[in-house]
Amino acid sequence: MRAAVATLFPEIFERFLASGVVGRAVSSGLVEIELVDIRRFAVDARGSVDDYQFGGGAGMVMRPEPLFGALRSIGWAGDGARVVLMAPHGRLLDQPLAEELAGCGRLVIFCGRYGGVDERFAEAAVTDEISVGGFVTSGGEVPAMLLLEAVLRWVPGVLGRLESAMSDSFATGLLDYPRYTRPAEFEGMRVPDVLLSGDHAQIEEWRFRQALERTRSRRPDLLESRSLDELRASFLEALRRAARSKERENGRDSEGG
Amino acid sequence: MRAAVATLFPEIFERFLASGVVGRAVSSGLVEIELVDIRRFAVDARGSVDDYQFGGGAGMVMRPEPLFGALRSIGWAGDGARVVLMAPHGRLLDQPLAEELAGCGRLVIFCGRYGGVDERFAEAAVTDEISVGGFVTSGGEVPAMLLLEAVLRWVPGVLGRLESAMSDSFATGLLDYPRYTRPAEFEGMRVPDVLLSGDHAQIEEWRFRQALERTRSRRPDLLESRSLDELRASFLEALRRAARSKERENGRDSEGG
Repeated sequence: MRAAVATLFPEIFERFLASGVVGRAVSSGLVEIELVDIRRFAVDARGSVDDYQFGGGAGMVMRPEPLFGALRSIGWAGDGARVVLMAPHGRLLDQPLAEELAGCGRLVIFCGRYGGVDERFAEAAVTDEISVGGFVTSGGEVPAMLLLEAVLRWVPGVLGRLESAMSDSFATGLLDYPRYTRPAEFEGMRVPDVLLSGDHAQIEEWRFRQALERTRSRRPDLLESRSLDELRASFLEALRRAARSKERENGRDSEGG
Repeated sequence: MRAAVATLFPEIFERFLASGVVGRAVSSGLVEIELVDIRRFAVDARGSVDDYQFGGGAGMVMRPEPLFGALRSIGWAGDGARVVLMAPHGRLLDQPLAEELAGCGRLVIFCGRYGGVDERFAEAAVTDEISVGGFVTSGGEVPAMLLLEAVLRWVPGVLGRLESAMSDSFATGLLDYPRYTRPAEFEGMRVPDVLLSGDHAQIEEWRFRQALERTRSRRPDLLESRSLDELRASFLEALRRAARSKERENGRDSEGG
């Protein structure tokens, strides 16, 4: 996959592109990401890229010349690439959109200024305006990082099988259940007995009840009108799928070692 | 305001904390932000901070010792601070929550691993579990940056009056209307005539119609059961508030110059 990020602040991305899942995708050669400094396409020697808006009102707007200039400098961008503009008025990013973008092969992300970009660029060149949520940021840079993380994990080969298993365990349709690890007792706080019981059916039911309770109190919108039986079935199916991938991964590990 | 970010990847934050609105908040002394490397509180000399989860299942979980260790290393954290854990199962970040956190004065943000953190830490030490949206990331680092951007702009003095005016123009209750700047014609694409007309009533009505249309097609959830008159009234009120702040700011500028 090829990706490019066009921004006025390329330096913010440098460490990010070298760390974590994104860094691994890049260093393994699965994804190539270039940074394009929009300022290189400024309209004057002082580096101007924005101006007041026609019709009056607060807020500077990015001019079309630097935006088209930056896009045209990316040689492969014309070739069926998705051109994303991070914008507070865009479509909300969710998992299906992230998967879809991962499948497109060529992805250009424009980090707009908060004040907005000239609509002619959006109309003529942008295929997707995307927002990451109902809150205000100064620019599209951090939203673009979030988009990259969400998208690149769907590129085949980027996640190990264990990480994919984890994704499965988050695909239960409910919020995550509480997780505990060693030590079994820490400063007087103990892990719930059921998790130490070895009774898998009881553990699954406990996890389902906890996940359901959390979802009810924090994100009731996720429950909609699904019945308890439906919710339990899809929850258990996702947990078991995660367990199977984990076993396969462990099997491969011991064969390898 | 004092803030701290506890993370396994402090290097990702360095350029971010020096750029944009967040960088300005820090360099002007309005906000002090420290980075805490959770790895310093690892449970062994190899730097281990996580382990398998009790009860089985995919995914490593962060152990309680490094988390409590990191929190206790922040001297002021006990003193009524909000302790946030970035987590996919948290409450969704929105503007009111960002404002509330900006008012608390002391804010600690823990970037959890995607696999989760031991629930005893969340129960005993965390005041707010926060999610930035319905998509999967590897860790809480990028979500934490988004939270910082959303929160710090509400700290008094961080935004100039012009930027506040812009925020007002985004507080219309609808998605943003299309914005245009110079040149009036670019490669055959012209700015809509109404914006060049000088007729303010017509411009306002055009902007309202455009914003309404966008919201209808992309985020109908924002419209709920509000009437057209209500929507128009709150939209125009926000635009006029933005214009007034802009005029005040321009007035101040010319006095100063």
